[in-house]
Amino acid sequence: MFVYEKKLLYPVKVSSCNPKLAKYLIEQYGGADGELAAALRYMNQRYSIPDKVTGLLTDVAMEEFSHLEMIAAMVFKLTKDATPDQIREAGLEPHYVNHGSALYYENAGGIPFNASYIAGKGDPIADLYEDIAAEEKARATYQYIIDLSDDPDLNDGLKFLREREIVHGQRFREAVEMLKENRDARKVF
Amino acid sequence: MFVYEKKLLYPVKVSSCNPKLAKYLIEQYGGADGELAAALRYMNQRYSIPDKVTGLLTDVAMEEFSHLEMIAAMVFKLTKDATPDQIREAGLEPHYVNHGSALYYENAGGIPFNASYIAGKGDPIADLYEDIAAEEKARATYQYIIDLSDDPDLNDGLKFLREREIVHGQRFREAVEMLKENRDARKVF
Amino acid sequence: MFVYEKKLLYPVKVSSCNPKLAKYLIEQYGGADGELAAALRYMNQRYSIPDKVTGLLTDVAMEEFSHLEMIAAMVFKLTKDATPDQIREAGLEPHYVNHGSALYYENAGGIPFNASYIAGKGDPIADLYEDIAAEEKARATYQYIIDLSDDPDLNDGLKFLREREIVHGQRFREAVEMLKENRDARKVF
Amino acid sequence: MFVYEKKLLYPVKVSSCNPKLAKYLIEQYGGADGELAAALRYMNQRYSIPDKVTGLLTDVAMEEFSHLEMIAAMVFKLTKDATPDQIREAGLEPHYVNHGSALYYENAGGIPFNASYIAGKGDPIADLYEDIAAEEKARATYQYIIDLSDDPDLNDGLKFLREREIVHGQRFREAVEMLKENRDARKVF
Amino acid sequence: MFVYEKKLLYPVKVSSCNPKLAKYLIEQYGGADGELAAALRYMNQRYSIPDKVTGLLTDVAMEEFSHLEMIAAMVFKLTKDATPDQIREAGLEPHYVNHGSALYYENAGGIPFNASYIAGKGDPIADLYEDIAAEEKARATYQYIIDLSDDPDLNDGLKFLREREIVHGQRFREAVEMLKENRDARKVF
Amino acid sequence: MFVYEKKLLYPVKVSSCNPKLAKYLIEQYGGADGELAAALRYMNQRYSIPDKVTGLLTDVAMEEFSHLEMIAAMVFKLTKDATPDQIREAGLEPHYVNHGSALYYENAGGIPFNASYIAGKGDPIADLYEDIAAEEKARATYQYIIDLSDDPDLNDGLKFLREREIVHGQRFREAVEMLKENRDARKVF
Repeated sequence: MFVYEKKLLYPVKVSSCNPKLAKYLIEQYGGADGELAAALRYMNQRYSIPDKVTGLLTDVAMEEFSHLEMIAAMVFKLTKDATPDQIREAGLEPHYVNHGSALYYENAGGIPFNASYIAGKGDPIADLYEDIAAEEKARATYQYIIDLSDDPDLNDGLKFLREREIVHGQRFREAVEMLKENRDARKVF
Repeated sequence: MFVYEKKLLYPVKVSSCNPKLAKYLIEQYGGADGELAAALRYMNQRYSIPDKVTGLLTDVAMEEFSHLEMIAAMVFKLTKDATPDQIREAGLEPHYVNHGSALYYENAGGIPFNASYIAGKGDPIADLYEDIAAEEKARATYQYIIDLSDDPDLNDGLKFLREREIVHGQRFREAVEMLKENRDARKVF
Repeated sequence: MFVYEKKLLYPVKVSSCNPKLAKYLIEQYGGADGELAAALRYMNQRYSIPDKVTGLLTDVAMEEFSHLEMIAAMVFKLTKDATPDQIREAGLEPHYVNHGSALYYENAGGIPFNASYIAGKGDPIADLYEDIAAEEKARATYQYIIDLSDDPDLNDGLKFLREREIVHGQRFREAVEMLKENRDARKVF
Repeated sequence: MFVYEKKLLYPVKVSSCNPKLAKYLIEQYGGADGELAAALRYMNQRYSIPDKVTGLLTDVAMEEFSHLEMIAAMVFKLTKDATPDQIREAGLEPHYVNHGSALYYENAGGIPFNASYIAGKGDPIADLYEDIAAEEKARATYQYIIDLSDDPDLNDGLKFLREREIVHGQRFREAVEMLKENRDARKVF
Repeated sequence: MFVYEKKLLYPVKVSSCNPKLAKYLIEQYGGADGELAAALRYMNQRYSIPDKVTGLLTDVAMEEFSHLEMIAAMVFKLTKDATPDQIREAGLEPHYVNHGSALYYENAGGIPFNASYIAGKGDPIADLYEDIAAEEKARATYQYIIDLSDDPDLNDGLKFLREREIVHGQRFREAVEMLKENRDARKVF
Repeated sequence: MFVYEKKLLYPVKVSSCNPKLAKYLIEQYGGADGELAAALRYMNQRYSIPDKVTGLLTDVAMEEFSHLEMIAAMVFKLTKDATPDQIREAGLEPHYVNHGSALYYENAGGIPFNASYIAGKGDPIADLYEDIAAEEKARATYQYIIDLSDDPDLNDGLKFLREREIVHGQRFREAVEMLKENRDARKVF
């Protein structure tokens, strides 16, 4: 069962209104290596992964959903005072004509999220390496956004998110070593 | 912030191993009108919907995630003792060669989930009618699965899920009436 | 059988060449809540909806196709005298390298149309609520385009289109009330 | 403007209830080389093609929409008396749990229609060769369905549709010869 | 078996750093009528096309892969010295946050490549007309890029690529005439 | 430049005609973790990966294309003598009505290949972990197909392919250790 607590996992602050930055951040809302992809990947794998790893996947999935919420809060703060001219200057009109001021599960280029970004192989080793790779790709994406950003308050939050991806990757590495003998794989054929 | 509690929202029981039924049920795991689509739709809209409706969308989103977990439990129970012949007879080999015994965000025809199933318009009236329609479509889908199913234990759970969709639809209808004057829309231009 | 009459449903005029506006308008040509999506949705549902509603869906579908033609005429008029610099300034080069001056079934962000935007559930109540929601979403999208547009002649046509969506929504609401008892549903199982 | 006339372009008859055949026929409803793809391709190209070819594209587009209606009528007749066992035996449950008895813009494998099947290049020669190829691919698909079908009444209708594709191809070949010098291309740069 | 030789099919030179041009060129890397689509189309058809045409499809496929390599070299040369400001001015940030400086199989609008761009009908005449159309569409796209480009060195390479598409089209036309009687079609039913 | 040599990388034999097995094998032709995905992933990454790893990616890409050819040969041998009844019994009619006897870039469920299966992050560590994960997922998929197959001759070829994925994974692990300090990343910002 899933429960919502009305607080952010980590504080979110931005220095100023900056819709252009919000456009880049959306990559981690609905993009291939973003928080939604991560949360859904781990939440799905937890049903087939061996028992000793189920708790890890559940915990990380819940954290990724909380990260997703932080991204949404960042986007809100970066856009809530945006003037029409700022929206135009940020090139956000294609988003606006479709979604107005709402968020949407898309990447920075406007491509809607799709599950082809995610694998669930049922093979625990393959699944965990998928997860390790996912965390590396998320780390890299956060680094690109930090590189493009000149907002020190925002970057504090982004660096937290990037560091958490690195920690997740460490946990997944430990888990895959634990499962290398693959004794718990549920075999059908 | 999102928290997991280790219990199902409603009990899940099945009468017998039946992979074919699991194949139909997957429609509500990763299909257009399924629990994932619903949860993500409401979770996304909550960031732009007027304050008086935010709590409703949050609560319903959390419930849909809990429904998603129930579907996963149903699929697990229907397939965990499946013999290779039962897998073949259910026509599940295309799923098996890609995912093994794992679940996946796909519909009954194997199409991966994609966010084009979901709208977030930023216009509260449009968003709430999208939600009313979504609940009707989910109700209809559960009815089709109940029609195809001969498992009374499973159908008890499916009827609970169908009834909850109907209740959600009632809440959304009340909400849209509340917002009909659209005073709270965040206008940019 | 479908027949073409060589006249527009409603006059289309624009004040000046404005490729940027055309880029926004394309959202209603090939976007999720645009005229093509609407026309195809109703044209498909008409084959399974109860008899007393078939005529409504047919008529509205034909009108949406005529709206689609109006959008094409608007885009043509807004771009036909565009200089290369205007094309560049409007950010239309990605469209141009793929399609030249031709139209295409895409949204304002260049995403190709796909049928996942459309539902046909075979359940008349679900189908009609899908239609009500579609009209609300189309209305909202036209409002966003009107908000972004400074062309009074174009806005006259857009306001006509927006008003027609509102009228369609009223007809669909009447129809769903008519069908609430769902006596005409074609049941297979 | 588009108008509906309440008659089929060509009579549609089937010999017996056969949901399996309907499943194959759907390929020409929502598939890559089907009637919807054709109708939308020509209807879109007509806005940019040189004047002397506009009428041809309009006429063929209207005929393809009328073909689409014939396919729908065929599917209806092949399935309207289907028993649950026939639906199961035809492997139509994945379609049923999502759409009930409704049609849907998908191919025989359940993949939703998407505009990537269609090109509109704005280059008249390229557009017309796209059209010639489309007609050949449609002809080939109708041949495959005729090969799979043992229903002589249905095959009469399918052979009509296949012959019309061949005739369309001939018209497009004449048109492209007419335009080979490409004098009417609307050049922007 | 496939072998790589460490040389370009044709020399690639650019006059100056120009990320904006690279953004247009990507259309021929991962777009609907680009080199990847062509290479994959011919490589796939070669397994079912009659023997007398297999060699042609193999040779053209190999050449298209070599063209793909040329496009990659062009993109590399156009972007390797790009400053952050040039990246921003070219509107390449959405690509950058996802892929950094890497290439990706996408079109100029950022849409990922998908196989729906490609047909393999198993009907040799249909397949070869698909190929003729593909070459025309590629020619047209190269012409649009040449039109947008002010780099004479780059245009030399682009004109080579465009001319090769024209030559391929001639070879496919000869091949389809050869096969018009369709004696070699592998018939199953 | 790419060159074709007219021989298979490794011999391909099958014991008997078995279209059902071919249907599973197609997963490695056009599926998410198949040979096409692998070949395209490595071929794309080679343009941005540090020099010391370029040769490895090129070599593995070429080998994956040669694997793709082996899969095509296996599918051909498994289906070339298939009777219409065998095609029906294998559930291959949806493929047949669209493609006849031709191959197609799809997975076992008929979903067309799309580039969302592939990542190219431009961050060498992320790219190499993506590659390690890809090889694990391919290994797992080959294991599932071997599990479903009762053809010893075919399985010999499949085991070769599976072992090669394991070897590729080892090479990628060595490469990522070599690059752990990430000195060669091309930084733009």
